[in-house]
Amino acid sequence: MAVYTDLGTERLADLIAAYDVGDLVSAKGIAEGVSNSNWLIETSGRDGSPGSQSARFILTMYERRIETADLPFFLDLLDHLSAANCPVPRTIHDREGASFRMIEGKAVALIEFLPGVSPTAPTATQARAVGVALARMHGAAQDFPGSRTNDLGPGENAATLESCGSDALAQIDPNLPAVVERARTITEDWPSDLPRSIIHSDLFPDNVLMLGDRVSGLIDFYFACEDQMAYDLAVTHAAWCFSKDGSRFDPALGRALVTGYETVRPLEPRERDALPLLAEGACLRFVASRAQDWIETPAGALVMRKDPMDFVRRWNTYRERGQEAFA
Amino acid sequence: MAVYTDLGTERLADLIAAYDVGDLVSAKGIAEGVSNSNWLIETSGRDGSPGSQSARFILTMYERRIETADLPFFLDLLDHLSAANCPVPRTIHDREGASFRMIEGKAVALIEFLPGVSPTAPTATQARAVGVALARMHGAAQDFPGSRTNDLGPGENAATLESCGSDALAQIDPNLPAVVERARTITEDWPSDLPRSIIHSDLFPDNVLMLGDRVSGLIDFYFACEDQMAYDLAVTHAAWCFSKDGSRFDPALGRALVTGYETVRPLEPRERDALPLLAEGACLRFVASRAQDWIETPAGALVMRKDPMDFVRRWNTYRERGQEAFA
Repeated sequence: MAVYTDLGTERLADLIAAYDVGDLVSAKGIAEGVSNSNWLIETSGRDGSPGSQSARFILTMYERRIETADLPFFLDLLDHLSAANCPVPRTIHDREGASFRMIEGKAVALIEFLPGVSPTAPTATQARAVGVALARMHGAAQDFPGSRTNDLGPGENAATLESCGSDALAQIDPNLPAVVERARTITEDWPSDLPRSIIHSDLFPDNVLMLGDRVSGLIDFYFACEDQMAYDLAVTHAAWCFSKDGSRFDPALGRALVTGYETVRPLEPRERDALPLLAEGACLRFVASRAQDWIETPAGALVMRKDPMDFVRRWNTYRERGQEAFA
Repeated sequence: MAVYTDLGTERLADLIAAYDVGDLVSAKGIAEGVSNSNWLIETSGRDGSPGSQSARFILTMYERRIETADLPFFLDLLDHLSAANCPVPRTIHDREGASFRMIEGKAVALIEFLPGVSPTAPTATQARAVGVALARMHGAAQDFPGSRTNDLGPGENAATLESCGSDALAQIDPNLPAVVERARTITEDWPSDLPRSIIHSDLFPDNVLMLGDRVSGLIDFYFACEDQMAYDLAVTHAAWCFSKDGSRFDPALGRALVTGYETVRPLEPRERDALPLLAEGACLRFVASRAQDWIETPAGALVMRKDPMDFVRRWNTYRERGQEAFA
């Protein structure tokens, strides 16, 4: 949650002039995204009418974590999904047709602004709508020509967690070192033959915009990759169906999410069988990345550290409830 | 630059429902204001037309420094100036007519959104326009019935600086303790009989929105108070006519600012005579507040510390150049 770079109004105006979107009218640095700087931009619009829906954009500057080589995949994916009527923001291309530009060695992209707010206390109706939107996205991405490997699979995540070291993990929480062993089991049992597509793989409520019960936007595709679709459903389940610290599971939300998904794409029996394990793998991923961030981020730094234990608690729920967590 | 409070979408929606502005359509935490949390809010509008200019607002939550008792002064002032055609955002009143509401012990106000961007490298033409806008604001505020004493006068600022202690000041910069003596002289020589009005007293470029060379918004009136108008011009001069670190003075900007001001309200000879001293007093104010913040803010805290020496350098320029800095 930060604006890392102070671009300066004059440079912003020059940048916007590279696009056929009219003149810069307003620019506010917004507190969104952990790895990027983002601005909510308003322009006079192509037809010079300020305030029209089409004249607002999100300008993203990629600060870290995202490889420039991956940007065409992410940005083309937005265009592909948007063209297929998924509620995904289009990439605005510059006058030369490029989907991103470089400023002082950093890539920037201008992206369609979508209305909507992210629910902080989702209802079952909202979770159902998210399940529908996720399944539609999986369907629409089937014929996307780009490809990107998931570099955050269970093996990588288990290795990341292990590399933190027992002592450092124990300093975060005494119960954290115990999950390293579990991580190994997950990796060994991980399925590899479930139906695949491009998956979002980070569909937390923060990355969904809603107008009431309607999904108006799926955003932040910067972890998207080619992988098993049921794993994406499991990630979304872990992200939506618990209280923030993971201590309270809401079965009604879980049920609604899966039901919504299946109205568009019914799960195969082997996918359904795999859901608890896939959800454990989803928890492993966030435990590993949070533990690593925790250790690498000095206390009192500008970035707020997230507690890995939030996802150890979810993990415990999936181990305890198994299939029941999805029914 | 921060969003201090995470309000949560549902609470935001409830809050917006207290105003006759339509439904919440979008809310982005914006990185503006050092003492408040701010959101750029979009609603469906009274007539249900999303995206119309009138359906965007800034929601401000007052986190610290601002006394709730002062809020009616600040917010009524916006309405008064806006009604007098100053480019100042109106306060949106709730359905009961209140200009602010309380949430969890904190005051919040909904304020009109104004287009425009803050210049980071102002031109003389822009400085002139700001001078014009400032003089008009001083004129429009003459019949504002509210009053608020300036609690950041030279005496208070000198006392603040002195209370930091020579050792602490020297730790910030070896040249800083020397200005304490100067601060005393300023206080002794300070005029008290110059023409008065309500002044903005913090009109940095950050607090001015412009569309090209036109001033589209004067914002952030949270230091406004009743005081000598020429002092406000001096503050604005110190804020606009130097490079960020104060090492480079641009006489053309200073000239343009004063010329613009005088097209609306010509300065009396005694005001003009006082300008160098008033500008020194403006520098004293920012040196004192920055030194205090520096000492009170631990290194590595979430708030960026500003170097008091930026305004010692400006101060030196005013001492060296005197009247010449305004000609």
